[in-house]
Amino acid sequence: MNLREVGEDRLLEQLLPSLPHNPEVILGAGDDCAVVKSGNSGKLHLLKTDCLVEEIHFTKKMRPESVGWKAMARPFSDFAAMSGVPQFALVTLIVPSRTALAWVKKLYRGIGKAARAFGVAVVGGETSRTEGPAVISVTVSGFVEKGRWVSRAGGKVNDYIFVTGRLGGSLRGRHLKFVPRIAESRWLTQNFQIHAMMDLSDGLGADLPRLARASDVGFEIDVQKLPLNPGCTIREAISDGEDYELLFAIAPKDSRLLLSRWRKKFPNVPLTRIGQFNRKSRIARPRADRKSKELPHGYAHFR
Amino acid sequence: MNLREVGEDRLLEQLLPSLPHNPEVILGAGDDCAVVKSGNSGKLHLLKTDCLVEEIHFTKKMRPESVGWKAMARPFSDFAAMSGVPQFALVTLIVPSRTALAWVKKLYRGIGKAARAFGVAVVGGETSRTEGPAVISVTVSGFVEKGRWVSRAGGKVNDYIFVTGRLGGSLRGRHLKFVPRIAESRWLTQNFQIHAMMDLSDGLGADLPRLARASDVGFEIDVQKLPLNPGCTIREAISDGEDYELLFAIAPKDSRLLLSRWRKKFPNVPLTRIGQFNRKSRIARPRADRKSKELPHGYAHFR
Repeated sequence: MNLREVGEDRLLEQLLPSLPHNPEVILGAGDDCAVVKSGNSGKLHLLKTDCLVEEIHFTKKMRPESVGWKAMARPFSDFAAMSGVPQFALVTLIVPSRTALAWVKKLYRGIGKAARAFGVAVVGGETSRTEGPAVISVTVSGFVEKGRWVSRAGGKVNDYIFVTGRLGGSLRGRHLKFVPRIAESRWLTQNFQIHAMMDLSDGLGADLPRLARASDVGFEIDVQKLPLNPGCTIREAISDGEDYELLFAIAPKDSRLLLSRWRKKFPNVPLTRIGQFNRKSRIARPRADRKSKELPHGYAHFR
Repeated sequence: MNLREVGEDRLLEQLLPSLPHNPEVILGAGDDCAVVKSGNSGKLHLLKTDCLVEEIHFTKKMRPESVGWKAMARPFSDFAAMSGVPQFALVTLIVPSRTALAWVKKLYRGIGKAARAFGVAVVGGETSRTEGPAVISVTVSGFVEKGRWVSRAGGKVNDYIFVTGRLGGSLRGRHLKFVPRIAESRWLTQNFQIHAMMDLSDGLGADLPRLARASDVGFEIDVQKLPLNPGCTIREAISDGEDYELLFAIAPKDSRLLLSRWRKKFPNVPLTRIGQFNRKSRIARPRADRKSKELPHGYAHFR
């Protein structure tokens, strides 16, 4: 059997349980960041790694500054998902020897710009040759206060489901210049009890079932309420992916205050209630966790 | 200009100074690990990333368990170089979809074995497709006590230079099963003042000039004293690389006690005094920091 037949999520499911743990680990692989003890009594340590592969995630036709920005902004978005603060980054660049120095310099300019925008220091770098496509792998280290970290698992039945920004059409350009929702996420956990949160990277249709499954709840969505990017259909908003918006759950009682305070704080970023968690459906959704551009079976709940 | 014309060390020299820093960084790129503040008053936080690329660092003919072991052991060796304790690892695996599941499982078995041997938890994983050669990228996070960390920069004129183990011939097999010298390194800093230390990855001929340059000293070596692996020539011991032994500097007054205590503690690991730091030679060694299998100009000092 080869990896195409297995699929990425199932591959990781098979590999990760057998990997070693230690008592310092609070949350290992499977959520947006790993959470481990930091030795600092008030804080937890967050770790995240993410990579871009040429011809899969980017092409040489794209502006290298934008590719560098995206390589750094993607793991920052995972920090936003946990309400964490990124502090340090390590960058591995694997490229053919024939690569132009100018391309690499522009790539690093984008990496540096994204890091600087969030106060992050790039503390290590490695370069290696390859005979194949270029790879940019970024690891980010940071922290979150013990009382403020949000996993995917804390959602409760009846929680309202919110999404920031607008969805769909990211591949027309926004995926290369999005701003990770760290400021929004930090504000949310400073002012409200957020029960569960994640960032939307594979599209609402793939990611919302993951959030619900991690929280052991079901969900219902009003698709007419989805905040669409200009020119996008509902279907695109659900399945395009790479939105890098926050998807989160909060108690209904906090909903009205959240909306009024959000509009004052972030007047240019829509915040939309798109649905509600409910008791878990008894209908099996065995393929709902697949990483796929197709809509998972969970999509039945969107209708 | 392309990367072949620039060379890896010079590329990083060009890229890294322009990357953002922040006040939490104690030592950024350029040493074996990055050293940053941890929030814990007694400890510093260490970060290291390292990658293996197919056809450059390994081939599909090698046992996947051994490739996995090496992928994890290499960054552990950088922790040994700083007398650090690795705690957490993130593993990124980039492979073609046609890769056999069995190969990946064996690779992870080797990764897990190495992590377990050093009490390290694998807290995150990512897999991605590629159309090209496989890549395994590992990031390790850990700590070192404030009084015990050793950089490359603390060597003093007249310090004795020691090397652990034996050198040369690693590519005949040892590079796939070496044991990072973490126990030895931790014992060294618990019992002695180690002035400067690094691990030998590119060979003594390339690495010793780096250690001396970081410490702003010169060096002289007695090549007849180099501890050779069976069947190796002096030249191979100097230039083969991938020894993953410790190279360190200590005050002459501590030398005798170090050797006698070492022999009792690590009877199966040779410890050899191979030379001494001296005043920096006035002869320019402009290419001594190249990452290259050729002997650098610094080799003049070996004769």
